Amino acid sequence: MAEVKNKQVLLRDYVSSNPKESDMYVTTSTLKLKLPQASNGVLVKNLYLSCDPCMVNCMKKHLNPASYVDSFKPHLPISGFGVAEVLESGDSNFKVGDLVGGITGWEQYSIIDQTESLCKIHLTDLPLSYYAGILGMPGMTAYTGFYELCSPKKGEYVFVSAASCAIGQLVGQFAKLMGCYVVGSAENKEKVDLLKTKFGFDEAFNDEEEADLGAALKRYFPEGIDIYFENVGGKLLDAVLLNMRFNARIAVCGMISQYNLEHPEGVHNLMNLITKQARLQGFVVTNYYHLYPKFLEFILPFIKQGTIIYVEDVAQGLDNAPAALVGLLAGCNIGAQIVAVS
Amino acid sequence: MAEVKNKQVLLRDYVSSNPKESDMYVTTSTLKLKLPQASNGVLVKNLYLSCDPCMVNCMKKHLNPASYVDSFKPHLPISGFGVAEVLESGDSNFKVGDLVGGITGWEQYSIIDQTESLCKIHLTDLPLSYYAGILGMPGMTAYTGFYELCSPKKGEYVFVSAASCAIGQLVGQFAKLMGCYVVGSAENKEKVDLLKTKFGFDEAFNDEEEADLGAALKRYFPEGIDIYFENVGGKLLDAVLLNMRFNARIAVCGMISQYNLEHPEGVHNLMNLITKQARLQGFVVTNYYHLYPKFLEFILPFIKQGTIIYVEDVAQGLDNAPAALVGLLAGCNIGAQIVAVS
Repeated sequence: MAEVKNKQVLLRDYVSSNPKESDMYVTTSTLKLKLPQASNGVLVKNLYLSCDPCMVNCMKKHLNPASYVDSFKPHLPISGFGVAEVLESGDSNFKVGDLVGGITGWEQYSIIDQTESLCKIHLTDLPLSYYAGILGMPGMTAYTGFYELCSPKKGEYVFVSAASCAIGQLVGQFAKLMGCYVVGSAENKEKVDLLKTKFGFDEAFNDEEEADLGAALKRYFPEGIDIYFENVGGKLLDAVLLNMRFNARIAVCGMISQYNLEHPEGVHNLMNLITKQARLQGFVVTNYYHLYPKFLEFILPFIKQGTIIYVEDVAQGLDNAPAALVGLLAGCNIGAQIVAVS
Repeated sequence: MAEVKNKQVLLRDYVSSNPKESDMYVTTSTLKLKLPQASNGVLVKNLYLSCDPCMVNCMKKHLNPASYVDSFKPHLPISGFGVAEVLESGDSNFKVGDLVGGITGWEQYSIIDQTESLCKIHLTDLPLSYYAGILGMPGMTAYTGFYELCSPKKGEYVFVSAASCAIGQLVGQFAKLMGCYVVGSAENKEKVDLLKTKFGFDEAFNDEEEADLGAALKRYFPEGIDIYFENVGGKLLDAVLLNMRFNARIAVCGMISQYNLEHPEGVHNLMNLITKQARLQGFVVTNYYHLYPKFLEFILPFIKQGTIIYVEDVAQGLDNAPAALVGLLAGCNIGAQIVAVS
């Protein structure tokens, strides 16, 4: 039975705010390349890992309500969405050699007991890393939130916050495909420029530079907002609530501005939901994976034609993984932040 | 052309909080019983008027976002939902002698220019006042919010706030008809008792006596809440957000706790919408009046069989109307507060 070195990224201790690199550490243990007897799980070799803002919630002792995986444990590998190759399988849905996407550990090899999150990858000529991004959780999140939850119509007014992120960049492009008017907000000039020059947003602005967010949205949406793809929360959500059109739909994907606050900010303008007959709908993308084949059928032609583009920022190797995650949370990345495991 | 005395309830001046009786005054003017030439409106004799909490929003200079009629004007009659008889019609949808329900003035006779809110009443053997309540706006609001927006299923856990109000008492009874478990909150012991003894709620409590609303809801809903019919807002909404089950649905009908605040309270727990995949849906019942025939078909047999009961508190005459409205806002009424005009 082969025994291998298994490099891992572990949590040093719970954090109370965005992690520093020193809140994680990289170590190498050894692992027998064998599933425990009678296991229904899979043994995988991890290939690509996705850095996602919501991971910060899992690094806290008291799980933040916006988390959809469990809290990480100190001195155990952290986990997230990724792409992996099956080395051994106790689950009849997967066989040796299969490529899978889903929740896995930040390490070279993982034993995944809970295989519900895993999806088999049918390779195309696109980069495999795409299955940790545009063809993985972020892509499915953008697709589900925009199409399934917001039922967009041609000509509608769409606002996306944190719009240069792995998910936001796609929502904006989906909105343009639908013939919508789309404005994105981001946290610095480089990202704002990218939204307009690369992803085809009609307008973009730096929401951290606006003293009056309500007035800023009024400027970009004099007619109001039909659809808001919510990644930020707090004051930005409050400003959107003041600028909704009748029958507005808000897909609540994340609230990154709130993750590091001990007490989340208050949102004051919810009464506008009544007269605007508006909807706030939260969602967890893993509950929509029955749509995955439909999503692939939809998106693959657009990627191949170059109609939809995808920007990823790939860090090489697990040694660089803590810095990649810290950088993402500090807003340093451009596009989807991925880690190539080996 | 007949000239008649027209007793009216007028707004004295804009209010900043719940009105006192002295913020309104009753006066008698004269009116020619004749529509202006070429009018497309109707001239009506008002019969029953409904006192609704949201009317306080219309008494303010700056219209509160939870209002769905325009601000009242000082020294003009206030308005609201009511039942009236058509005396003259410039609208081909209505003829002389028709009974109608919809938005009308607080006066003996009104000329209604905007007839979109009016619905023809096909009389049954039920009291005509019911068309200002259970068979009018409050009934349609309960029906739309509960059935259309919340898609209830047998066995689900339902919470109704301000549950003894004209709308809440019906939501609770609808929930029981569906085989749901239903708990209501109200603001005093008499109303709490009424919920259990009269309307068949499984449990009821006084939300103003609970120091920790989250803990109170946890006590009544150890398994969490599937459906919340929102009439109160603020801290109670925040407590519900902490106690939702997966796929929870919240119909946002009103937020009475916020109407008199200069700045609405902050709601802090919206992140729970994400992991609970929950929905907040605001609505304005007048946009659902295409469902009115379906609603009548549904509810009339239940009322006639006595399966659904309705408690109304009828004030006699326009002279007593200001006190009735002030009493409603102070929580003095039991059941739906109606004014019989003559």
